[in-house]
Amino acid sequence: MIEINHHRYSFPKLLTLGFLAVIAVGTILLLLPFATRPGRQTGVMTALFTSTSATCVTGLTLVDTATHWTPFGQLVIALLMEIGGLGFMTFAVMTSLLIRRRLKMSTRFLVQESLNLDNVSQIQVVTLIIKLSLLIQLLGTALLYADFGPRYGWGKGLWYSFFHSISAFCNGGFDLFGNSLANFRTDPYLLVIFSVLIIAGSFGFLVWQDLLQFKKAHRMSLHTHLALKTGATIMVLSVIVYLITEKNLSQFDGQMGWGMRLVNSIFMAITPRTAGLTTFSYTDLSAAGLSYTMLLMFIGGTPGSTAGGIKTTTIGLLTLQAVATLRGHRDPTLAHRRFRQDNVFRALTLLFVALIIIAVAILILAETQVLPERNPLTYLTFEVMAAFGTTGISLGVTAKLNLLGKLVIMALMFIGRVGIYTVMFSIFNAQPKQPSYRYPEEGVLIG
Amino acid sequence: MIEINHHRYSFPKLLTLGFLAVIAVGTILLLLPFATRPGRQTGVMTALFTSTSATCVTGLTLVDTATHWTPFGQLVIALLMEIGGLGFMTFAVMTSLLIRRRLKMSTRFLVQESLNLDNVSQIQVVTLIIKLSLLIQLLGTALLYADFGPRYGWGKGLWYSFFHSISAFCNGGFDLFGNSLANFRTDPYLLVIFSVLIIAGSFGFLVWQDLLQFKKAHRMSLHTHLALKTGATIMVLSVIVYLITEKNLSQFDGQMGWGMRLVNSIFMAITPRTAGLTTFSYTDLSAAGLSYTMLLMFIGGTPGSTAGGIKTTTIGLLTLQAVATLRGHRDPTLAHRRFRQDNVFRALTLLFVALIIIAVAILILAETQVLPERNPLTYLTFEVMAAFGTTGISLGVTAKLNLLGKLVIMALMFIGRVGIYTVMFSIFNAQPKQPSYRYPEEGVLIG
Ligand SMILES: [K+]
Ligand SMILES: [K+]
Repeated sequence: MIEINHHRYSFPKLLTLGFLAVIAVGTILLLLPFATRPGRQTGVMTALFTSTSATCVTGLTLVDTATHWTPFGQLVIALLMEIGGLGFMTFAVMTSLLIRRRLKMSTRFLVQESLNLDNVSQIQVVTLIIKLSLLIQLLGTALLYADFGPRYGWGKGLWYSFFHSISAFCNGGFDLFGNSLANFRTDPYLLVIFSVLIIAGSFGFLVWQDLLQFKKAHRMSLHTHLALKTGATIMVLSVIVYLITEKNLSQFDGQMGWGMRLVNSIFMAITPRTAGLTTFSYTDLSAAGLSYTMLLMFIGGTPGSTAGGIKTTTIGLLTLQAVATLRGHRDPTLAHRRFRQDNVFRALTLLFVALIIIAVAILILAETQVLPERNPLTYLTFEVMAAFGTTGISLGVTAKLNLLGKLVIMALMFIGRVGIYTVMFSIFNAQPKQPSYRYPEEGVLIG
Repeated sequence: MIEINHHRYSFPKLLTLGFLAVIAVGTILLLLPFATRPGRQTGVMTALFTSTSATCVTGLTLVDTATHWTPFGQLVIALLMEIGGLGFMTFAVMTSLLIRRRLKMSTRFLVQESLNLDNVSQIQVVTLIIKLSLLIQLLGTALLYADFGPRYGWGKGLWYSFFHSISAFCNGGFDLFGNSLANFRTDPYLLVIFSVLIIAGSFGFLVWQDLLQFKKAHRMSLHTHLALKTGATIMVLSVIVYLITEKNLSQFDGQMGWGMRLVNSIFMAITPRTAGLTTFSYTDLSAAGLSYTMLLMFIGGTPGSTAGGIKTTTIGLLTLQAVATLRGHRDPTLAHRRFRQDNVFRALTLLFVALIIIAVAILILAETQVLPERNPLTYLTFEVMAAFGTTGISLGVTAKLNLLGKLVIMALMFIGRVGIYTVMFSIFNAQPKQPSYRYPEEGVLIG
């Protein structure tokens, strides 16, 4: 429990309210007259949706970012992605750093709980990670400028470099090109820079912390082991799957040799995990590719990162647990350590609740929206997964949603970013205290 | 471990092999020349697929049951449904009863383990349940004959009554009308008889046993509580959902008033759980209705019944567990009893493994099959769910599958009927003995 102005808030409630406050401020800023280009109009719903999509680093849009918003509006979107990407608690630390004030003790505890840190002294590591984050984005801007500068002239080139470095590192998914990165699909330099930025941003704090301290500690946490191994496994598997399923992708035909096709397949494997920047229109993806991409978006990235979805550690732990159960073993293990049992419960509950949320969302949207002629249910499901995974790859359904549809997608982006447990705990008002009695135990038949 | 002719088999392996043996015998019988009508040809793959579909009480077909198979062939299909529906161990008890021999002790133990019974004396209850099953099917035949007799003449009428009573009670899904029950959609008498037969067959042994002993014991097991409450909840929810999503179903327009529409909605809610008999072509179902039906097929029915899918108790227990976790409580409880923790683990692992199996199946089929023009991925997913849930409602994809596609669907029907745990345990060769050491524990970040 955290006390602010004599009101006591649980941490999940505070985090949920914090995100809502950021979205509200973003909405107001986007509604300012000089945020919208002359000749365009911004309704409250469009501002709210855009602010939610940016804060939840998703990238689904109702209007074209480049032609609808002024540079001021785009700057608001970039800042919202930065706050949403690093997490707003981290942002509090960052602000303190920038204005060189000592962190208040209450803020320290908030940061600590928000980032699952063991003690206050570790906040030193957080400041290091924040500095590193900003450095990477600065470096990203410079490296992108090497291409965008000559291509667009220095003013526009610098602005594009800055915006897309943030969008890539924070896995925000917004772009100023109208067709994401499709213009650059045969440019290996840009694709590599973007890939590195995306991967760097999707590691999450705990992994960064472990990697930074590895030289000193010579030991990685079980979390980092699991996150890196699951991530690498999914990555390799995804490249192979896309090389097979998209061998006939019409948009690439005649444009590239096998080398560029491999680079694009790697990019295809990276981006649905949470980034959402794409090198071609996903409406051309094969049926197998679509279903696999939905799966990747559902899984999402590393917890504590900018990613949505149910997270790689969840899927990794569940796989280890399932194999252990099916082999008749008691414990799921990795790197000579076993997982805490309540972690497994948390992972399994998360999967189940995520499935219910997605099923309900699909059902509501299928019943209330005017569906596309082509593949109505598939396209709808894809958009739901893109919102829940805060991936933001769109097949064009989002732009045509009615009010209820927009609200559902916004709720999915919010849950995807803030986290099922955080949102559910604030709704259910979880009481950690147990009833003083336990009922007698009895088994049932399962499966 | 069970010893047969000096070979030792684990129970899951024996059950898996038993089902495979029944399928093999069925295939050979269907390949006999007098099983196929003159002018038709039956290939090995068609016989194997039909035998698998009948034994796994699914009802997906490559050829029309009425016009392709002779009455002998249809009888084989009916018997396979009976064996598959009651379970082949139960069938051993039944055979012993019929030829009035005492059960061998080894068979008794098999039956006991197969039906999760506590002690050998309870096998008395099993014989009672088997007699009841046969009585219900006999009664079903008589009640159906009251309509089919006058409609088709006594010979054909009796045959149709017999075949469809078995198909309904065993939730087999095969029919001799070519369009399932579409001819009878405005006949409340037949729809009610079919509904009662389907529900009676989908209860499962433990529930029947509890209901039969309730007068004496004045107590229901936790299993029966959970199965009945989950079943009833899903049932009521499903009727409401279908009344909303199918209010504009074109096949019903002008044919029926609100009363018949309600009866059909109830039938629609009952049949995807595992029966697969339908009163209209599901290609006309709305997008929301399709997605909801897929969900119902994935869930399936009660364990120990003729149902496939992940089972109602699994979904019921997971819901109780998720609510408990989200409210910060330790135990999921129902009817003043708490569930064994390993039940929850089993349920969660089952859900996860089922999802992986289905995702892999969809991916393989999407990549290797010629997909339908209309809604390719949705139709494919529907067919996968219909196979896994042993429901057998088809959108026409199955008939057009190539060899690999048929093998995938057959594997899904088999896993759906025999059970994920049974199949997986026989593949993984689970060793109940634990390693003598445990690694140190460590937590990870989930969600
Ligand atoms: K994104
Ligand atoms: K069936």
